[in-house]
Amino acid sequence: MTLQHFGQSLALLTDLYQLTMGYGYWKQGMARQSAVFHLTFRKPPFGGQYAVACGAESAVEYLSRLQFDPSDVDYLASLTGADGKPLFEPGYLEELARLEFTCDVDVIPDGTPVFPHEPLIRVSGPLLQAQLVETPLLNLVNFQTLVATKAARVCRAAGSGSVLEFGLRRAQGIDGGLSASRAAFVGGCAATSNVLAGKLFGIPVRGTHAHSWVMAFDDELEAFRAYAEAMPNNSLFLVDTYDTLEGVRKAAAIGQELRANGHRLLGIRLDSGDLGDLSRGARRILDEAGFPDATIVASNDLDEHSIDRLLSEQAAITVWGVGTKLATCYDQPALGGVYKLAAIRVDESSPWRPAIKLSEQPIKTSNPTPQQVRRVFRDGLIVGDIIHTHGAPPVDGTCVLANGAHHFLEGDDAVDLLQPAMRAGRVVSPPEPLTATRDRCRRLLQQLPAEVLSLHDPAPLPVGLAPSLHELKQRLIQQSESDKTQQDLP
Amino acid sequence: MTLQHFGQSLALLTDLYQLTMGYGYWKQGMARQSAVFHLTFRKPPFGGQYAVACGAESAVEYLSRLQFDPSDVDYLASLTGADGKPLFEPGYLEELARLEFTCDVDVIPDGTPVFPHEPLIRVSGPLLQAQLVETPLLNLVNFQTLVATKAARVCRAAGSGSVLEFGLRRAQGIDGGLSASRAAFVGGCAATSNVLAGKLFGIPVRGTHAHSWVMAFDDELEAFRAYAEAMPNNSLFLVDTYDTLEGVRKAAAIGQELRANGHRLLGIRLDSGDLGDLSRGARRILDEAGFPDATIVASNDLDEHSIDRLLSEQAAITVWGVGTKLATCYDQPALGGVYKLAAIRVDESSPWRPAIKLSEQPIKTSNPTPQQVRRVFRDGLIVGDIIHTHGAPPVDGTCVLANGAHHFLEGDDAVDLLQPAMRAGRVVSPPEPLTATRDRCRRLLQQLPAEVLSLHDPAPLPVGLAPSLHELKQRLIQQSESDKTQQDLP
Repeated sequence: MTLQHFGQSLALLTDLYQLTMGYGYWKQGMARQSAVFHLTFRKPPFGGQYAVACGAESAVEYLSRLQFDPSDVDYLASLTGADGKPLFEPGYLEELARLEFTCDVDVIPDGTPVFPHEPLIRVSGPLLQAQLVETPLLNLVNFQTLVATKAARVCRAAGSGSVLEFGLRRAQGIDGGLSASRAAFVGGCAATSNVLAGKLFGIPVRGTHAHSWVMAFDDELEAFRAYAEAMPNNSLFLVDTYDTLEGVRKAAAIGQELRANGHRLLGIRLDSGDLGDLSRGARRILDEAGFPDATIVASNDLDEHSIDRLLSEQAAITVWGVGTKLATCYDQPALGGVYKLAAIRVDESSPWRPAIKLSEQPIKTSNPTPQQVRRVFRDGLIVGDIIHTHGAPPVDGTCVLANGAHHFLEGDDAVDLLQPAMRAGRVVSPPEPLTATRDRCRRLLQQLPAEVLSLHDPAPLPVGLAPSLHELKQRLIQQSESDKTQQDLP
Repeated sequence: MTLQHFGQSLALLTDLYQLTMGYGYWKQGMARQSAVFHLTFRKPPFGGQYAVACGAESAVEYLSRLQFDPSDVDYLASLTGADGKPLFEPGYLEELARLEFTCDVDVIPDGTPVFPHEPLIRVSGPLLQAQLVETPLLNLVNFQTLVATKAARVCRAAGSGSVLEFGLRRAQGIDGGLSASRAAFVGGCAATSNVLAGKLFGIPVRGTHAHSWVMAFDDELEAFRAYAEAMPNNSLFLVDTYDTLEGVRKAAAIGQELRANGHRLLGIRLDSGDLGDLSRGARRILDEAGFPDATIVASNDLDEHSIDRLLSEQAAITVWGVGTKLATCYDQPALGGVYKLAAIRVDESSPWRPAIKLSEQPIKTSNPTPQQVRRVFRDGLIVGDIIHTHGAPPVDGTCVLANGAHHFLEGDDAVDLLQPAMRAGRVVSPPEPLTATRDRCRRLLQQLPAEVLSLHDPAPLPVGLAPSLHELKQRLIQQSESDKTQQDLP
């Protein structure tokens, strides 16, 4: 993953308030109380009904390297408060300098389709540690999940065509680009233009030439011929620097020269104009010139919706270069992931006190207790998920949906989604090859009902709380509301 | 900057097609021809009329470190084409392994307000080198310019209030977050929550506590009291975990306790609900409790439009925590920056051949020849910019606007915006302190006419081509069109 490529401690990659809260817990003697946090999201992105979990592997890598180095501690010692005095006492800084991450971490593996309110990551351990890591975990998981989901949507729209990720130039910074390339591959992209992502993650790399190649020559034909000389077996020409269909004719002319010399024209790329019309025109020219196998690649601000529309208009395109709208998740560039306290206890021998964050919007009220997700299958298809208290598995397929309705999931198989990733701070499941992550994603997406994946009016998968968890949550909400009316100020 | 914190060669942080084109140039013996490229954008982001240039300092740092290490070359040697044979000849890989960046680079300094079609960066030097760096320069400049611009807009909306950047958790990866924090500070933010950005860039860091702090205690009052004990002089309470105005009353109660012990309540933070109503209610409670100086901080999906609206409704908020919508540039997460060839020559002694990229959309037709931008001032205010051929300064204030109209900029002072950053690959202007960059941005924004900066129906600043450049461009367009009609296929 990318983290090892930062030659820098990333312990301070967090919001200041995590460190001030940590300080408060330390001052209160609460730093070593046990806490359980979940990372969840509330609404699937892009108007869809699912997300593809991604970023857990990075998160575990981050946690496994978490350590404050002397320069981190020196920096924290230099911070002052509103009164100009040091923000933190030396004792706390010593605690941080000594800190070793000792939490248990469970994750839903990267590439798994997931649904609102499901814990993608569960962190349980000392309150101070579990709190500090909120921001980096959200940073890593929010963005990668968003890109993997977008890639899955784009690849589904492309059907049997393949999708190349071309987003580096518009990506949000260096590792915005690197982690987008990785997550896009997990979500189903066939390759990336990002050579460093190819080197670091083993993703296939693809690309040909730009308009500037054509502009560097006196005319387009000469430019294509020069490119064919350099890459006789890898000639795919960008044809729209001047007039697109003229460009296709020139590409076909060079294709004849290549063929005469025992080589082969790979294809052409369209990057502007009406891609539907131009692709059909290009296909005719290429077919008539004897190149029925030449590929037509299209790019230019594509996303799942434009690809879907172009294919419904019989565009003759089989390879899609998708850049900006994939790498930045243009139509929704942030997933609203949150990291909420679900339970706390004074020490290992005490009972968990379930915690809940209330909100006037019921969708924003968090679920209490340490949780697990049971995924129910029937005939190899996913029929729904049940979020339940960890250690209290559902007795049958009954769950309570977000609208309060009881729903029965009739299955013949079930799996628990959260898998152990760290125990007492040690990694217990090694990173898997990226192709395995990508295969998981493809396999599980195929097991989802088509209506859940649809671009048009998708239907939600039934996902609910186990009845016992639902009852506990309702009890906590009522209790908190009655506290509010009874409680008076001192 | 962040690049030094990557413990990894970033030479491969580019699109594959840059390397295949480089290969083509090398095979054609063109790799050492001289070329000039400009990095420009076509349309200001966010429906505004300006952008704040940012990313040039990172770009120069990137270029000054550009070198292919042995692992980069080994990786490139492993790439194969459609025929299964190596994509690149060993001679080219040796050329890359030996490559030292020797271009001249001129940049518009970070923090400068800029306008469509102005070259933010000009790279001139050997074609192979100047081509290879297209992708990383776009990656660095597109995103940082976008964030600095968004920050400038948000800070202008906040008026005399201050803006804190809170975006790390929703930012697009690790250095998506780091570079967003830096660019947001350049654009005018007062501080960030991102502690690592504080450490690396010297940006002030701010933050208090989260809902999870309150949830970790049996009740809210106890939670506030515990926080006040830890941070008696830095107590700013998040009051909306349960009932917001009740939370404000509890914060005021703890404020009394703090005062009794010789300390002081800093303020409160609102993070949900109707921020206008709640801030006025909170202000009344705080004033009545004797805390007229307590600050009211607001957060929750803010941007320049919501801040503008809240202030027009007399919201009692003076500090704005802006996260997602700033760090991801939510309403437009990509700037359409491009990097286009403007001129090429066979060797230093030949004349420049101006290059142009045509498009059916005139706005997408690039400007030819190496360029410079003259900014014209009158009475200390910016009246407009003239894009002209480098070395052929405008003879007077006449320029040709995008609509073809001639416009006269009457000024009493003028400066050239592009400044030398590298000569023959060596950095000639050292990085400046980030506060100097931020001061430049603030000063120059104050020199722009208010109607250019306005959120509502902003007016464009007059920016045009020098007449001689305009005429050359028209001539090249006509020439290319007549070539197209005359030229037939062989």
